[in-house]
Amino acid sequence: MTQNPVRFGLIGTGRIGQVHAASIAVDPEATLAWVADPFVAGAEDIVKRFGGIATASPEELIASGEIDAVLIASPTPTHVDLIAASVKAGLPVLCEKPIDLDISRVEALRPLVQSSGVPVALGFNRRFDSNFREVRTRIEAGDIGDVEQLTIISRDPVAPPADYVKVSGGIFRDMTIHDFDLARFFLEDIVSVSATGTQTFDAGAREHGDFDTAVTTLRTASGAIATIINSRHSAMGYDQRIEAFGAKGMLQVANAPISLVSRSSADAVDAKPAFGGFFLERYAQAYATELAEFIKLVRGEASTSPTFDDGRAALVLADAAQRSATEGVVVSVAL
Amino acid sequence: MTQNPVRFGLIGTGRIGQVHAASIAVDPEATLAWVADPFVAGAEDIVKRFGGIATASPEELIASGEIDAVLIASPTPTHVDLIAASVKAGLPVLCEKPIDLDISRVEALRPLVQSSGVPVALGFNRRFDSNFREVRTRIEAGDIGDVEQLTIISRDPVAPPADYVKVSGGIFRDMTIHDFDLARFFLEDIVSVSATGTQTFDAGAREHGDFDTAVTTLRTASGAIATIINSRHSAMGYDQRIEAFGAKGMLQVANAPISLVSRSSADAVDAKPAFGGFFLERYAQAYATELAEFIKLVRGEASTSPTFDDGRAALVLADAAQRSATEGVVVSVAL
Amino acid sequence: MTQNPVRFGLIGTGRIGQVHAASIAVDPEATLAWVADPFVAGAEDIVKRFGGIATASPEELIASGEIDAVLIASPTPTHVDLIAASVKAGLPVLCEKPIDLDISRVEALRPLVQSSGVPVALGFNRRFDSNFREVRTRIEAGDIGDVEQLTIISRDPVAPPADYVKVSGGIFRDMTIHDFDLARFFLEDIVSVSATGTQTFDAGAREHGDFDTAVTTLRTASGAIATIINSRHSAMGYDQRIEAFGAKGMLQVANAPISLVSRSSADAVDAKPAFGGFFLERYAQAYATELAEFIKLVRGEASTSPTFDDGRAALVLADAAQRSATEGVVVSVAL
Amino acid sequence: MTQNPVRFGLIGTGRIGQVHAASIAVDPEATLAWVADPFVAGAEDIVKRFGGIATASPEELIASGEIDAVLIASPTPTHVDLIAASVKAGLPVLCEKPIDLDISRVEALRPLVQSSGVPVALGFNRRFDSNFREVRTRIEAGDIGDVEQLTIISRDPVAPPADYVKVSGGIFRDMTIHDFDLARFFLEDIVSVSATGTQTFDAGAREHGDFDTAVTTLRTASGAIATIINSRHSAMGYDQRIEAFGAKGMLQVANAPISLVSRSSADAVDAKPAFGGFFLERYAQAYATELAEFIKLVRGEASTSPTFDDGRAALVLADAAQRSATEGVVVSVAL
Repeated sequence: MTQNPVRFGLIGTGRIGQVHAASIAVDPEATLAWVADPFVAGAEDIVKRFGGIATASPEELIASGEIDAVLIASPTPTHVDLIAASVKAGLPVLCEKPIDLDISRVEALRPLVQSSGVPVALGFNRRFDSNFREVRTRIEAGDIGDVEQLTIISRDPVAPPADYVKVSGGIFRDMTIHDFDLARFFLEDIVSVSATGTQTFDAGAREHGDFDTAVTTLRTASGAIATIINSRHSAMGYDQRIEAFGAKGMLQVANAPISLVSRSSADAVDAKPAFGGFFLERYAQAYATELAEFIKLVRGEASTSPTFDDGRAALVLADAAQRSATEGVVVSVAL
Repeated sequence: MTQNPVRFGLIGTGRIGQVHAASIAVDPEATLAWVADPFVAGAEDIVKRFGGIATASPEELIASGEIDAVLIASPTPTHVDLIAASVKAGLPVLCEKPIDLDISRVEALRPLVQSSGVPVALGFNRRFDSNFREVRTRIEAGDIGDVEQLTIISRDPVAPPADYVKVSGGIFRDMTIHDFDLARFFLEDIVSVSATGTQTFDAGAREHGDFDTAVTTLRTASGAIATIINSRHSAMGYDQRIEAFGAKGMLQVANAPISLVSRSSADAVDAKPAFGGFFLERYAQAYATELAEFIKLVRGEASTSPTFDDGRAALVLADAAQRSATEGVVVSVAL
Repeated sequence: MTQNPVRFGLIGTGRIGQVHAASIAVDPEATLAWVADPFVAGAEDIVKRFGGIATASPEELIASGEIDAVLIASPTPTHVDLIAASVKAGLPVLCEKPIDLDISRVEALRPLVQSSGVPVALGFNRRFDSNFREVRTRIEAGDIGDVEQLTIISRDPVAPPADYVKVSGGIFRDMTIHDFDLARFFLEDIVSVSATGTQTFDAGAREHGDFDTAVTTLRTASGAIATIINSRHSAMGYDQRIEAFGAKGMLQVANAPISLVSRSSADAVDAKPAFGGFFLERYAQAYATELAEFIKLVRGEASTSPTFDDGRAALVLADAAQRSATEGVVVSVAL
Repeated sequence: MTQNPVRFGLIGTGRIGQVHAASIAVDPEATLAWVADPFVAGAEDIVKRFGGIATASPEELIASGEIDAVLIASPTPTHVDLIAASVKAGLPVLCEKPIDLDISRVEALRPLVQSSGVPVALGFNRRFDSNFREVRTRIEAGDIGDVEQLTIISRDPVAPPADYVKVSGGIFRDMTIHDFDLARFFLEDIVSVSATGTQTFDAGAREHGDFDTAVTTLRTASGAIATIINSRHSAMGYDQRIEAFGAKGMLQVANAPISLVSRSSADAVDAKPAFGGFFLERYAQAYATELAEFIKLVRGEASTSPTFDDGRAALVLADAAQRSATEGVVVSVAL
């Protein structure tokens, strides 16, 4: 590459912001130019480790004239305004999911994004996991024929704190939204949503009217059915499996092993250690690829970054699932 | 055992009737006394191999005075009348599933069965599979805590002929009915049913308004969710897996291997041969145990045979799934 | 089949004799005619369950004129004389391994067996295991190219009593002898033997100068190498695996599962239950096939029964291993 | 860490030299100060990518006064002299294996190394693989009791060119040497060696009197037996497995997966893709850990780096194996 590295303005320095900062620092095609966080110590800490200029003001970052792209990793309620400001400034955006918890705010933002022509990408990291990509490539190569059933098992290690549950928008908008996007990565033309949600173990979910356990069924126009099985906890750790079933066979993605060691004894044969980590560990490679694909998008090259409309579609599905689970109806969607 | 073998009257000599005849012949606690089939050559053929008296008339068999129990393996539409006749004659019955495709006929028969005190067992063979039983035993022992999610994957090797689809009652009453019973084997108090069915590959399903692909979600009063994933075909053969997920862990039943051999090469590592067989092969052990448990029931001993009411419950769930898939609603059930 | 069942005379009613009696009883091509054991109560017990005439005298059995074949399952020191007597009476023999612990007695018997033309088969049951047969079939079909390395892992669940160790002939003649025959099932032309034996845990082995742990390497004329890894105990139960490695790939036979259930929890993922059983359970199918193949041999049909010379070859290899392990030399053999 | 990074002098810029250069560049505790290679363009290329000063002269590098440690990745025949020169200059050394192909040269160097007190570490990378370390940790924690049998399967993807075979010192000194060290990582007190080597497929091995296939058995003073199974090729790719068997159970290290995807179809169930890579990919993490442990050694901290004497021991075992395979004797060793 003889191009200059893309100068990033990073907004938000929480857990996921730090992941992106590290990805930018490692990628030779990227450089961290500005970091903004109202909690300015967070920004200063990042700058100390990875370089750039720290500020408490995202607006100052956007107006700096020293960045080529904005990476939004701030709290969800700030996303819409920051996308709007960035796009108005002509700066391509990589925004963490979801765009917003309120679809009406997303719809209101949509015309600006579309008319601007400025690229807006959504941070659906799982699309960049090499295993899921391999499955899609092999499906496209005809390895299993048409996909008739897709099963996504997605369980977090432990339920989040009740405080988080309260503002999360609910399990479908907060957690399943990744699985909705992953379903769309394999299956297009989803036309209806049916979801069942229950409270089985988590006091936080019970307190705030959320579900801790959910199963969602998506139907496509061609008759394929995707099933998403969610739980907010998992004794054996982060559980991330998929199974694509087609006319000619099946492709499965197993959980990632934390080691290659297994133990056999009188009690248990071939027992492996539990994974231990969470999404940062499981999808470490995916975050790096996500950034690389976004850089291509910034440079006008062919890119597989999910778009603003992908972000909107996932939220539409989440809203439909929420309504289905609450009202006991199957909900039609037009994506 | 010092008791005399139970003398069986077998009605119906098709594929499943032949399985039962062989089971009776092998079991030292059972003997084949009479065999009835309007297609009398079928009965004579069984008698030639396993002993007993052949007749074209089930009524003659029931009235013979030479049998202790009736095993009904004739076509579904005959089940209700044959159960009624057997019960009236004081003869315990093991009847193949389903009791009938029409729930109203089942409900009409129910008072007679209940008032008679004569044991009526249903042929839900999977309850007797040693693997599923082991899972239930371990759940009851607290191995994984309360079950929060149950996933049943159940796919037949190839779709049945269109002629069969036409009279089958549809995928839920014909195929999923086994999975409904298996779900009830692990989870009681199912209160609602949501199902999605589609036509993806089978001309027979399309011709007769049936589904070839279906996903059903069952909800229990306590909040557990069971998911049943069905397909009428499977390129890699009969697919019969379950996964019980609880607060403390997960129990899985894998597909049965046809051999212990795997092959590794440049193209594929650790590749196993496909199973090849179908339910007769996969559940061979279960059929024998089913018979043994029924014999205990006949003898008044403690038995785990599924009852007439289990047969009714599975049909109620099948009807609910059919309605849910057709009308796009979640259907409440009271079992 | 329109042929009469083969009438068996069974000599020896210990554990393995009972297995053969049951196999004969189940096989429609066989019938149990006479049973001999100096401990006549054992013979009477067998006869009570499976039919036939009991006697304390093997000679009376051989001379009865009412049997078509002899199955020798008596203690090893009696094998040579009983084979000789049977062959002289023109009766085909299926003899449990080994022929004898003393190769000189085997060599002395050999001319009689060869000149008689009477079929003598050896009870190397593993040759009849469907998995090992599948591997051989696939090797012959060219699935992995020429076999370059064969690895046999063979570990018993628990060490035998010290009394048994004392008369067993040592681990190579008693236990590894099965693996030597299995190696010859896949690889012909073995030309040299190198073995290492140690005492690591078993007081009985120590007391009687035997090994409880051994590794044997066999070399063929063409350069293939077979490795046999033995232990007299195994915490996770009977361990019976093989791995055939060739120029184009590898075929592996895994241990048999006792169930299809696995458990995942915080401590251990995908843990299966230990096998539990021993050779009678692991090779149940093999014993039945072994009998069926011997019946073909009796009838003059094509048969895959291992021969007297196979029994001799295994003992030659065992003797060579014993010498190699004791003297620290590589031993050449001419089979 | 507040210590200054260790300044490395790297000698040799072939494939493995480049790996070490990259490791040094990435490790914040290390810096690349000098790079020497008589083929100076190689050194200049490294310097361009990772910094430092390039020279054609290792002597100049050692005498520069600007380095804290020497990493020797030059051809094997140069190792002894470069270790000697470094040690005399008081510079700690990390030397790629083997020290030399000639044990007499190693013995001649040994007094200097021992009397100097300068740390000399050997590049046995597998000791740093997290999986093998986990096995050792669990063995030390008593997870499987005393190790009675250790099985190492180690097969390269493809045989090296005949030119390389010619100067390699033979399969035992070139390839198995890693496995000898790994065996010593788990089992101390090896007292005898027995090896079988053959020529089965490789023209290069045949041409230069080497083996392409080998099995080596090592015996410890306490009676444990290690078996090393080697091949110079493997159709399914780099094969690196171990199995530690003890009184209480077994620990296995499986091959590394290249992806988490498996495919099931009519032909093959659960088939995974072949690994594809070789030692650089399989042991990428191990090289980084190896460097980190050596840095601890340089700094006088507790370190698990294998020593000069470990390098000597592996060569003694290789020589013994070569003699055993050639002469057909078991060879005693005193390490």
